Amino acid sequence: MIPSSQFVPEPWAVRETALNLTDLAQSESLFALSNGHIGIRGNLDEGDPYGLPGTYLNSFFESRPLPYAEAGYGYPETGQTILNVTNGKLIRLLVDDEPFDMRYGEIVSHERVLDLREGVLRREVVWASPAGQRVRVRSTRLVSLTQRSIVGIHYEVEPVSAPARLVLQSELVANEHVPAQSGDPRVAAAVQNALQPQEHRGRGTRALLIHRTRSSRLRVAAAMEHVLDAGDDCRTELAVHQDWARLMIGQELQPGQKLSLTKIVAYGWSSQRSLPALRDQVEAALIAASRAGWQQLIEDQRTALRLFWEGADVEIDGDLAVQQAVRFALFHVFQASTRAEQRAIPAKGLTGPGYDGHAFWDTESFVLPVLTATAPHAAADALKWRATTLPLAVERAETLGLRGAAFPWRTIRGQETSGYWPAGTAAFHVNADVAVAAARHVRWTADAEFERDYGLPIYVETARLWSALGYTGRDGCFHIDGVTGPDEYSAIVDDNVYTNLMARENLLAAADAADRHPEAAEALDVEADEIHFWRRAAETMSVPYDEDERLLKQDKDFTDHDVWDFAATAAAGAYPLLLHFPYFDIYRRQVVKQADLVLALHWAGDQFTLEQKARAFAYYESLTVRDSSLSAATQAVVAAEVGQIDLASDYLAEAALIDLHDLQHNTRNGLHIASLAGTWLALVAGFGGMRDFDDRLSFHPQLPPGWDGMRFRVRWRGRLVQVGVSPHEVTYELIDEERTPVRVWDVDTALELEPGVPVTRPVHPVKALTARPRQPDGRAPLPAAELTARATS
Amino acid sequence: MIPSSQFVPEPWAVRETALNLTDLAQSESLFALSNGHIGIRGNLDEGDPYGLPGTYLNSFFESRPLPYAEAGYGYPETGQTILNVTNGKLIRLLVDDEPFDMRYGEIVSHERVLDLREGVLRREVVWASPAGQRVRVRSTRLVSLTQRSIVGIHYEVEPVSAPARLVLQSELVANEHVPAQSGDPRVAAAVQNALQPQEHRGRGTRALLIHRTRSSRLRVAAAMEHVLDAGDDCRTELAVHQDWARLMIGQELQPGQKLSLTKIVAYGWSSQRSLPALRDQVEAALIAASRAGWQQLIEDQRTALRLFWEGADVEIDGDLAVQQAVRFALFHVFQASTRAEQRAIPAKGLTGPGYDGHAFWDTESFVLPVLTATAPHAAADALKWRATTLPLAVERAETLGLRGAAFPWRTIRGQETSGYWPAGTAAFHVNADVAVAAARHVRWTADAEFERDYGLPIYVETARLWSALGYTGRDGCFHIDGVTGPDEYSAIVDDNVYTNLMARENLLAAADAADRHPEAAEALDVEADEIHFWRRAAETMSVPYDEDERLLKQDKDFTDHDVWDFAATAAAGAYPLLLHFPYFDIYRRQVVKQADLVLALHWAGDQFTLEQKARAFAYYESLTVRDSSLSAATQAVVAAEVGQIDLASDYLAEAALIDLHDLQHNTRNGLHIASLAGTWLALVAGFGGMRDFDDRLSFHPQLPPGWDGMRFRVRWRGRLVQVGVSPHEVTYELIDEERTPVRVWDVDTALELEPGVPVTRPVHPVKALTARPRQPDGRAPLPAAELTARATS
Repeated sequence: MIPSSQFVPEPWAVRETALNLTDLAQSESLFALSNGHIGIRGNLDEGDPYGLPGTYLNSFFESRPLPYAEAGYGYPETGQTILNVTNGKLIRLLVDDEPFDMRYGEIVSHERVLDLREGVLRREVVWASPAGQRVRVRSTRLVSLTQRSIVGIHYEVEPVSAPARLVLQSELVANEHVPAQSGDPRVAAAVQNALQPQEHRGRGTRALLIHRTRSSRLRVAAAMEHVLDAGDDCRTELAVHQDWARLMIGQELQPGQKLSLTKIVAYGWSSQRSLPALRDQVEAALIAASRAGWQQLIEDQRTALRLFWEGADVEIDGDLAVQQAVRFALFHVFQASTRAEQRAIPAKGLTGPGYDGHAFWDTESFVLPVLTATAPHAAADALKWRATTLPLAVERAETLGLRGAAFPWRTIRGQETSGYWPAGTAAFHVNADVAVAAARHVRWTADAEFERDYGLPIYVETARLWSALGYTGRDGCFHIDGVTGPDEYSAIVDDNVYTNLMARENLLAAADAADRHPEAAEALDVEADEIHFWRRAAETMSVPYDEDERLLKQDKDFTDHDVWDFAATAAAGAYPLLLHFPYFDIYRRQVVKQADLVLALHWAGDQFTLEQKARAFAYYESLTVRDSSLSAATQAVVAAEVGQIDLASDYLAEAALIDLHDLQHNTRNGLHIASLAGTWLALVAGFGGMRDFDDRLSFHPQLPPGWDGMRFRVRWRGRLVQVGVSPHEVTYELIDEERTPVRVWDVDTALELEPGVPVTRPVHPVKALTARPRQPDGRAPLPAAELTARATS
Repeated sequence: MIPSSQFVPEPWAVRETALNLTDLAQSESLFALSNGHIGIRGNLDEGDPYGLPGTYLNSFFESRPLPYAEAGYGYPETGQTILNVTNGKLIRLLVDDEPFDMRYGEIVSHERVLDLREGVLRREVVWASPAGQRVRVRSTRLVSLTQRSIVGIHYEVEPVSAPARLVLQSELVANEHVPAQSGDPRVAAAVQNALQPQEHRGRGTRALLIHRTRSSRLRVAAAMEHVLDAGDDCRTELAVHQDWARLMIGQELQPGQKLSLTKIVAYGWSSQRSLPALRDQVEAALIAASRAGWQQLIEDQRTALRLFWEGADVEIDGDLAVQQAVRFALFHVFQASTRAEQRAIPAKGLTGPGYDGHAFWDTESFVLPVLTATAPHAAADALKWRATTLPLAVERAETLGLRGAAFPWRTIRGQETSGYWPAGTAAFHVNADVAVAAARHVRWTADAEFERDYGLPIYVETARLWSALGYTGRDGCFHIDGVTGPDEYSAIVDDNVYTNLMARENLLAAADAADRHPEAAEALDVEADEIHFWRRAAETMSVPYDEDERLLKQDKDFTDHDVWDFAATAAAGAYPLLLHFPYFDIYRRQVVKQADLVLALHWAGDQFTLEQKARAFAYYESLTVRDSSLSAATQAVVAAEVGQIDLASDYLAEAALIDLHDLQHNTRNGLHIASLAGTWLALVAGFGGMRDFDDRLSFHPQLPPGWDGMRFRVRWRGRLVQVGVSPHEVTYELIDEERTPVRVWDVDTALELEPGVPVTRPVHPVKALTARPRQPDGRAPLPAAELTARATS
């Protein structure tokens, strides 16, 4: 059952007008604020009730031993788990001695608004205490996009009808109790009370707590400062203890009078810096933010977002639900990455503890294509993070007996922490995903320096990995055996097409970049023979194809296998499969968890004919159960390419609404950042038909039925290209202020775009070569109209 | 480096003439005594020094949680570990207040003899205490083959040169400290102090301790009784505590006077029986054994072994080292099984804690073929044990979403306890191994009742498993995908030949037996359609074959893969591979841990031509690294079949001497019972060329160069057939007392053997079709002559 959304669509906000206590954890994820460095879940200011309290710092984790029933060579021994750090967003309120708690008394009115242009979470509540005292609370919360270490909260309370004695308690709390996220008691044991107190101090309205993790030995400092707007009779009191600090503010107010508080919280952490250095760092951040003041923080926030939206917004005419969803999606993708600054972008961003806070290949394969086109600085930072982890990846490759670098399947800091190798170590495609994302970034930005300093080392070491992993078979083809592709319902297969074709791009990127940067390549010991080997391997890369059926095979043996019994599974309601069937049974049959061959159709689309794509898409649609959130967006892209526009719409809606509608029933643990990024891909690469093969930026736009228009912008080689699509026409326009022209392609026609000279062309809808593909029983996407209607009902 | 043996070959004993303190644990395994129900390691009577103390009861284990870094559906959650139970073999000695400890003082002479005809371990030591007091100690130890619960020790001590004050301390000790066998602290935690005291009592010279395991809730009782032969001035004192009981005997002796003690220890355990019932059981066993007395126990032991050797002995003329080794091997195979009585035969028997005391497929595939031919009652018991675990196997199959029964990959009591599914759950061949072992047992014994009551239910449920696991592909063949064969260096493959051909036999066994026992089959809900399906699946079973290369493929894709870099591995000394390379790397290349396709050449040899076997053997020899002890024997069998007689000799020697020479450096943890059984297979199926295809008992004898003769006996349909091979002739003879003839085959010629009328035929040595196959660098077996020479040097 798909729950309907509680959020009425509107273009620039997500608005909650009633507090749903049972879905609190979901709204905490949706209303999470972040800048990529700090993330705070949308917990209520007063702390209670909560679904899941959460304050995260990028790459701040606790480590724990990874246990195995049977040990194996090369198994990672240490896991990493994101930690809920010192909570600085707490502001409790007592009304005539009764704690403001929305489970008691009466909620007269409630509204929370995530403002996608302002970058703040606003709340306004009128609450009547059990004793009948009414107060209005307004709060505005931000995680600063311009001051990386800063969280700001503006909090205001006023009695509505009668004088009231009010007490505010603004707190820092370390080692909050967090509900267990795992059935494994060892995980819980590692995460509970992980912060060991090292220093606590306070004076006036300011307080500081410093802690260090037990096992990973990371030190975190959190400090708070307050600006109070209150009458003279206001009384304050500061208490500071090892695990908590509290500023109490007491005042009696008349109706119409307000008690207003600005709270600035600063965070800092380090694995290396000394305690005094860290203390100084957060106090400096506090001073800087306090000096700027609340209004300036708000304005800076708005400006940062305006700049983002100017280059990234997608406007949709005719579908408000998708309009809201894509902006919500882009907002969170931006939040997750803009100030990550050479740290990872986790699968959940910093919105929740899901997947232990780990980053996967999703970042490079789903998030970075969006950032490269809309916020290239963030993409560059994310790729630089991977580059900084190259020494760890080289070490890992050595452990595995390979050459080059093997990036981790899942990690927070760069070490492999995957405890199940068939779906971890064996999923070597992550290495090509990283390299290809870097190559794409270079293609889009034409940033030669980035290529030389960050791209090339990544390409070279990953190309070396592929050289070590693959071999030339008796058929003269280059084969890569025994690996796992994106589809986690197949594993340890030979010649996975996606892996092979991404490896091909990886090898070519290494060869090309080495040719372009001979000195840098030499410094990496790249020799002519090696480049020749890479090109030869790329040219002869095996792509399994069934000539009789004219069908691309996901891997060498895939289409030989027995087909999964979908009817029985549907009858038993046994989805997701991995919770109801053993791996061995899933692996040995034709069943696809998520786009894999279809993902190759998208990203290596130049390697196939349209007919091959259409046939393959139809075939794999019949096997794909979408037990992963990393699927619908890709299916939307390829559906659009092969002319299955209705189906593309359905998949777009599913990708876009995954969190707003909690389609996977786990938004509580954090947002699906890659699926949200996929919303943009479905729109721009799907309905926009955007591709970048052969260094050409090309489009093949076509609107879904019922839409009147779509307009999006991408940043191509520093230039802002706008594409406006209507049902029958498409208009390309350069909207920046440089004077040089830019070449883009409309389908197969090159257009030289001159600044200020829009070019309009007719749209060429793709004619479908097959009937609408069928999905496995019960696994067809909901019709987009039906899904989005739930949002408006 | 292969250590030379410390044991000089002799035909009927293994004799140690010097105590090697560093190899103590190895000799404890070699000198272990067992009857399949109780096993005691060859620890010195006085307990110290020890390598690894060990007293085991078949199927007595402690359970513990199996942890996983990442959980998966259907993973077993509880492990089982064999426990060192109450030690009853301890007899300490004080000589003038100095403890008799062979690390101190002087060992004047030392000898231990494992007597393979008497079934006892004898020891004679002359020791001078640090103070110079000399004593002679003689002990004889047995685990009764006729009284299942009984261990007996006869201990005698005398001063050699001067009067001595002697004290004997005969003990029962529970919860002995055992050196950790695993790097995993959780395993150690489960096993240390696992026995919780429940009752302790004693009177006179008798004492009893009852304990229960913490987690598996099994109760064990151990009791001891003593008969003393000493002078009147002897003084005794009994002390009984929760975890230990001790009878002290003090006496002053003159040279020539002896203090002599017979100690009888009785064991009993149960998961269900009450404490009083268990107490009564062991006390009854004590009384029965005491009443029989030491001499009777010794005589019964000799008789039991005489009966065994009459039907099982292999006599070799011309190779004393192999002669000794095969008798040592058969002795331990017999010990491990004869009184197991519907409990498992573990991979190590009851000789050590290796593999946690688990039983694997080795039992059915290596041990039972020997027992069926030499000690059929023990084979029947082992198969009945499997039959008793059918309900657990059916439950496991249900968990896995399959029909029929899925026997565990590793277990003590029948529950799956394998913590790594690619080499556990996926190794479904264990099911065919069980079924085929039962079918072979029926073929040999013609025991229709056994077939109906035990064989048929096993065949039917395992045939149902294969029906669920396999499918008919587009090529019309029956395929079994995603399984792991015997070669643990490949995993999750399609159409493993060994698995498929064993499944074929399994399916045919089910169909044939169901036809023969229609009522029993009906009771199992077998219908005509199902039988038809089984036959059809068997007939169309896929056997991957490369027509171009005329080569059998181990599995569908095996020969396509890159070949392992053996040269580099040899140079790095990186064997066994699994300790130096990750699974993914091992799985994706052509490298074979242990006979797999070659195992199919043996057991499904009727499915191939001799030429196919010769070509396949040569090919897989070049890839097989023998990182498993379950390989050399099979390579010997097939080498002999394809005329590679020298190579067969080398492999025979390796299989035979695996423990006597500690070839795998782990004999300390227990003997390799399956490899020991393989010694017999190498001799009888290898040089004897014995096969049983098509219900024919056939031979194709040929001796290795340098041997003058070999004579062995097998029990075929209740009759004792003797085969005597000389370099040029073979003589078949019926040596039992029945009057009916028996048909056997010499190569392709049927012989009707009449009682008392030997038939002599010329031998037909097989002409090799290929050159002597090469093994991977550094992995060729040592020449047999060189290996056996080490035993005599």
